[in-house]
Amino acid sequence: MRLPDFKVEQWMNVYEGQAVYNLTDTCAKALTVQELLDLEPMDLNHIRLDYGEITGDRELKKRIVELYKTGSIDTVTTCHGCLEANDLVMNTLLEPGDEVIICQPSYQQFEDIPKSLGCIVHKVELDESNHWLPKLEDFKKYLGPKTKMIILNNPNNPTGTLLDEAYLTALAALCRPFGTYIFCDEVYRGFSDEPSISDLYENGISTSSLSKVYALAGLRFGWIKANTDVIHAINVRRDYTMISTGPWIDALADLALRHREELVQRNIELIHKNKAAVRSWLETESRYSVELPASGTVAFMKYHFDLPSETLAKQLLADTGVFFVPGSCFDHEYHVRLGLAQDPKILKQGLSVLSDWTNRHVG
Amino acid sequence: MRLPDFKVEQWMNVYEGQAVYNLTDTCAKALTVQELLDLEPMDLNHIRLDYGEITGDRELKKRIVELYKTGSIDTVTTCHGCLEANDLVMNTLLEPGDEVIICQPSYQQFEDIPKSLGCIVHKVELDESNHWLPKLEDFKKYLGPKTKMIILNNPNNPTGTLLDEAYLTALAALCRPFGTYIFCDEVYRGFSDEPSISDLYENGISTSSLSKVYALAGLRFGWIKANTDVIHAINVRRDYTMISTGPWIDALADLALRHREELVQRNIELIHKNKAAVRSWLETESRYSVELPASGTVAFMKYHFDLPSETLAKQLLADTGVFFVPGSCFDHEYHVRLGLAQDPKILKQGLSVLSDWTNRHVG
Repeated sequence: MRLPDFKVEQWMNVYEGQAVYNLTDTCAKALTVQELLDLEPMDLNHIRLDYGEITGDRELKKRIVELYKTGSIDTVTTCHGCLEANDLVMNTLLEPGDEVIICQPSYQQFEDIPKSLGCIVHKVELDESNHWLPKLEDFKKYLGPKTKMIILNNPNNPTGTLLDEAYLTALAALCRPFGTYIFCDEVYRGFSDEPSISDLYENGISTSSLSKVYALAGLRFGWIKANTDVIHAINVRRDYTMISTGPWIDALADLALRHREELVQRNIELIHKNKAAVRSWLETESRYSVELPASGTVAFMKYHFDLPSETLAKQLLADTGVFFVPGSCFDHEYHVRLGLAQDPKILKQGLSVLSDWTNRHVG
Repeated sequence: MRLPDFKVEQWMNVYEGQAVYNLTDTCAKALTVQELLDLEPMDLNHIRLDYGEITGDRELKKRIVELYKTGSIDTVTTCHGCLEANDLVMNTLLEPGDEVIICQPSYQQFEDIPKSLGCIVHKVELDESNHWLPKLEDFKKYLGPKTKMIILNNPNNPTGTLLDEAYLTALAALCRPFGTYIFCDEVYRGFSDEPSISDLYENGISTSSLSKVYALAGLRFGWIKANTDVIHAINVRRDYTMISTGPWIDALADLALRHREELVQRNIELIHKNKAAVRSWLETESRYSVELPASGTVAFMKYHFDLPSETLAKQLLADTGVFFVPGSCFDHEYHVRLGLAQDPKILKQGLSVLSDWTNRHVG
């Protein structure tokens, strides 16, 4: 089942290496193994490289459950990153002909995997004029007995939209009569007390990983939390697609979660500084505007001049080394994705270079 | 898309922990990280846990190419184990309505993933009376313009069938007029100079991993080798399902392949000893017989008494701790899978216990 190019991933693959000022990345600079071990010394070399516990180390799963208000280890399974978690959820639960509702702009995986499985995909627009929130009525319009799943990213990439507990509870109430799953990629959750759909709705499915909030993308460790029926069905599929994450990854993931507050704090401070820098930059910069998000690591910055976003991003990168993912990768023009977790020095310099470039090219 | 239970994996998950004499495993006791580092000291702790090179470290891919007679790094991509490699190949290339030919008995993934994708699956029987070889004419019977793919496991789990270069070349000649892919899981290849389909046929696709031949299952490292069009299409899908394997796994995989001869030699010696032990045991044991394979780590042992294989395996395990995967997990009765890579002491003891148990229960 052929899939189209994954635009944002392809963009990152092709252009990220040329960035001098990477203003678009979704995570802070990754930690080294040593930096993790500095948090707590541990003998990793004794680990025997067998399959390990098939659905993930028990202690590790307990620690994952602690990230939520409800659940037990039977409501969790593990995998290689949130992307694989999402793929497992959709491949396990969706069937040809199922209807799915997604938000736009969001992560392309949520549209193209269901389409490749023969699902009918309805789109609800995120409203920039209202903090990038989707309208509940828009979901209502499409919801019915054939709606197998609503797919959300909360906080959302690229807009930073954060759906709060009240919103999610209201959405769950709309879904309940139809048994519709609400599947929520929560990979950007963890900086504050953002709600998890798996705590709020019996058919809520949460996925996450250590990649964004913990800056450990290279560990390729993620998980799924859902009711035990869903987890069982996903575990059946895992036997066909991955078997296990392996004991070394599980051990380091466990170490990271034992020290989650320290790891998260580092990124909270970065984001805090970067938001302040963006706010201060915007005070003298009228050609750009951005809704800074309540949580997560990204925002979707609007520019107020007439240039296709791909042209802007390519020219800017070639001229200055300032690197953005263009809105075109999210089918949404006149925007670029702004990352908020990078080195604040780079961000400040990059924004200043961006203004200079805009002076020269746009005026 | 729901899948049925993966019988052999479920069996291992549920019962392996109770084994005293594990006579069925497909790989030798896994190495520890330290045992790998003993081959060549290396500072793993400096590794930064970012995504790493998206389609796998370049040097590592060069080393993978060296396992074959043809190819370049553009004919290789990496993933988490051979299982994921297989899943990527089938999900990328198969479409609903495609016809697929598989062998029986073999690994359940090759039947149920295509079926879940809406493919029509034809089965060719492996002939125990002829070294578990499939008849070329049986493939011919099903081959036609709608045949998208033949799926093989070479050497085969559970029978140990090894298709040689002449056989594969003849099969490729049958497939060529239809452009049919020959996808071959070669995870048990590497003990001798077994052929690879990717060296013999332009539409040949090989998958493998470090799990079996190198006893490093917990590294969860595998790869795909195929023509550049296939690799490109798979890399597009990888962006939706895994992104990368991560730099730590890549570094250790590279180390393992730099020392592949030492790692393989250890297992060759184990298998050599174990085959000798099985042969000597069979001289005085008429109730069992087995075609010992030319390569790979498994054989499919026949028993000559009337007991369903699941009953046999369960009762034997409960009574004695001797552990087998029953033929029922491969839809093939009166057989159990015999592993040939375990500790020879365990194998010898286990076979002796098996004979005693058979004396008591079968006579």
